[in-house]
Parts: sequence; C-alpha cells; structure tokens
Amino acid sequence: MTDEQRRRRGRPRSEQAHDAVLAAARELLAEVGYARLTIEGVAARAGVGKTTIYRWWSSKAELVAEILYRPISIEEIPESGSPRDDLAANIRLIVEPFTDPWYGPALTGARNDLNADPEGQKAFQAQIMSGRRDTGRAVFQRLVDAGDLPPDTDVDYLIDVMSGLLVYRGAIWRQPITEEDVRKLVALLVDGRPPRRTPS
Amino acid sequence: MTDEQRRRRGRPRSEQAHDAVLAAARELLAEVGYARLTIEGVAARAGVGKTTIYRWWSSKAELVAEILYRPISIEEIPESGSPRDDLAANIRLIVEPFTDPWYGPALTGARNDLNADPEGQKAFQAQIMSGRRDTGRAVFQRLVDAGDLPPDTDVDYLIDVMSGLLVYRGAIWRQPITEEDVRKLVALLVDGRPPRRTPS
Repeated sequence: MTDEQRRRRGRPRSEQAHDAVLAAARELLAEVGYARLTIEGVAARAGVGKTTIYRWWSSKAELVAEILYRPISIEEIPESGSPRDDLAANIRLIVEPFTDPWYGPALTGARNDLNADPEGQKAFQAQIMSGRRDTGRAVFQRLVDAGDLPPDTDVDYLIDVMSGLLVYRGAIWRQPITEEDVRKLVALLVDGRPPRRTPS
Repeated sequence: MTDEQRRRRGRPRSEQAHDAVLAAARELLAEVGYARLTIEGVAARAGVGKTTIYRWWSSKAELVAEILYRPISIEEIPESGSPRDDLAANIRLIVEPFTDPWYGPALTGARNDLNADPEGQKAFQAQIMSGRRDTGRAVFQRLVDAGDLPPDTDVDYLIDVMSGLLVYRGAIWRQPITEEDVRKLVALLVDGRPPRRTPS
C-alpha cells in the first residue's frame, strides 16, 4: 500500500462524500448550468442521499456559492520572497474560475437566490468570504512587513478595490483578466502607479 | 404662460410617457420589489398601454436596468476648477441609489434575467454603460489635462477599478460608501496614495 493509498483510506467517509458532492455539482454546472441544476441531480451523480447534501448546505444556492468562491487558504500562497509576486499569485487564484463559461450565469443565479434568503447569504458571507479575506489580509501584511506599504494601511479597503476590479471585469462583464491586468493592479495597489495604455 | 410651462407643453408626448413609465417602475420597485414587479403593473401605474412600454424596452429586466444604471451625463459634473472634486462628484452620482433598500435585490434580479437574454444584455451594455463610461472618460481627461495623471494613463482601467470598488462594496455587499471612502478612492486613483486606517 502506497502512502497515497493509505492517506486516501484514512480520510473520513464524510469528507469523501463532501468532496464528491462538490465535484458532482461542478460537473453539472458545466453540463446543464445553474438554472437546471437540482439537488436531486447532484445527489444522484455523487452517489449520496439528498439528506447528506442538506446536512452541509441548506440550499442549491449555498452549495453552488461554495464552488464559485472556493475557500482560498494562505497555504496556497507560499512566501516567494517577493510580496508583490505573492499578491499577484492571490489575484490569479481568485480569477482562475472566471473563464469557465458557466461561471457568470451561475454567479448571478446563486446571488439572486441568496438575496431571497438572508440567512443563507449571511452564512455564505461568514464562512467563505471571511476565509478569503483572512488570506488577503495575510498577503497584504507581507507587503506591510516588507515596508512596501505603510503600517496603518487600510488593508480591507485595498482588498475591496482588488476584489471589486476582478469581480467587475471578470465576473460581471466577462472580460478576460490578463497578466498585464494583474501587473497593473499590483502596481496601483502597492506602488500607487497609474495604469498606462502603453506597456512599460 | 411662463417659460417653464411653455417648455413642458412643448415636450413631445412620447417623452412624457417614457418618463412616466420610468417613474412608475421606480415607485413599484420601492413598493413591491423586483420579483413582484410586472410590465402590466407599470403600464397601469403610468397610464400607458403595455405596447407603449415594449416600444422602448424589450423586457422587465431592461426597463429596470435603466433605472438601476440611469445614464449619467457629463453635464451633471460641471468643471469645479478641481478635477479631483469632479471625480468625487462622479463617484457620488454613481453610488447615490445604492442606499435604496430595493436596489441590491433588483440589481441581482435584473442581471440574472439579462444573463438569460444575451441580446438584452448587449443592448443594455451598449446604451447605458457606454454612456456612463464616456462620462467617466471625460472626467479622467480633466485630470490628464491638468497634469494630475500621465497622458498615456489607461483611463478605462481606472474606470473599472472605480466602478468595481463601488459595485463590490455598495451594491454586492450592501455596505455604505462614505465620504471617507470617496476621498480614499480619489487619493488612490489620482495620487497613488494608499488608504490609511487612521484619518489623515
């Protein structure tokens, strides 16, 4: 038995089922889209019962929200030695799923359903988004520690500026976020350099 | 007859009906919300026929989108002598409606419906958003002309950063956009100054 097999065997059943549900939901989003996705369909694809799904997510919108905004942990952004590169890496992790064609419609669909369900929206905001924000704060803290940003920088404001541009361009208006865009964003947020039309 | 009366009398009937439809839809958004708003209800409130409404808007989502993103013309932002203040004025015009409680749900509702209607989304993007963008470009051009930004500034990128923060904070997460937030945004976009936690 390899280490990998041992590790897999050792995983709790519930964790396996949790991942299977997310994987099945992701496949179905790509195949049928948000509007036609059902909890029944996800349960059948994942080989679990509906009650298993409802143990973790109270609605289809909450389940899909976890796919749209998968948690990003600081462990995924190891210290490269350049805090600017770390920030660029964080940006790339955020925009990665935007290019999937089902992403935009699923985002507005799930948001629309969550709007009608204030409890679900609060749970989503608390669990997923606060985890992403903690990661963003840790990345900006590296810039503060390196002296690239002042100690009293309003880091949450910069995180909102960063997230805002990415969501506005990438998710709402479905425009590609290029490496040039990532570079311009880091230069504006960290160095206060205005973006130029001509490459520098 | 005063000049004002003469001007009103002189307005074409169709323009009056157009404004009446927008006013009625706005009232109904506040009263019943996006989900329960109907074209029939708007027609009755405005005192026009449904066909009159469909002459200008192909769907409820398009009509509501015009209310959510009303055109902002450069005439609404006269030159104050300080291009930074002009930019702040533009920002205030954008965030003005965000505090209405019906705004957020109507935004996601209309966006969701427009996603299912690519033609409607294109028409909306072309008519409304491009007008707003022209206004934003003219405001940033004043900053370039005053030497506050380099001549080759990627103005469209800055407009996306500005719109992104406002939509993300104000419309998606329903947080108030304060005067302090406006000041921080102008300082970051024009002067490259990072936002601080402590007021400066």
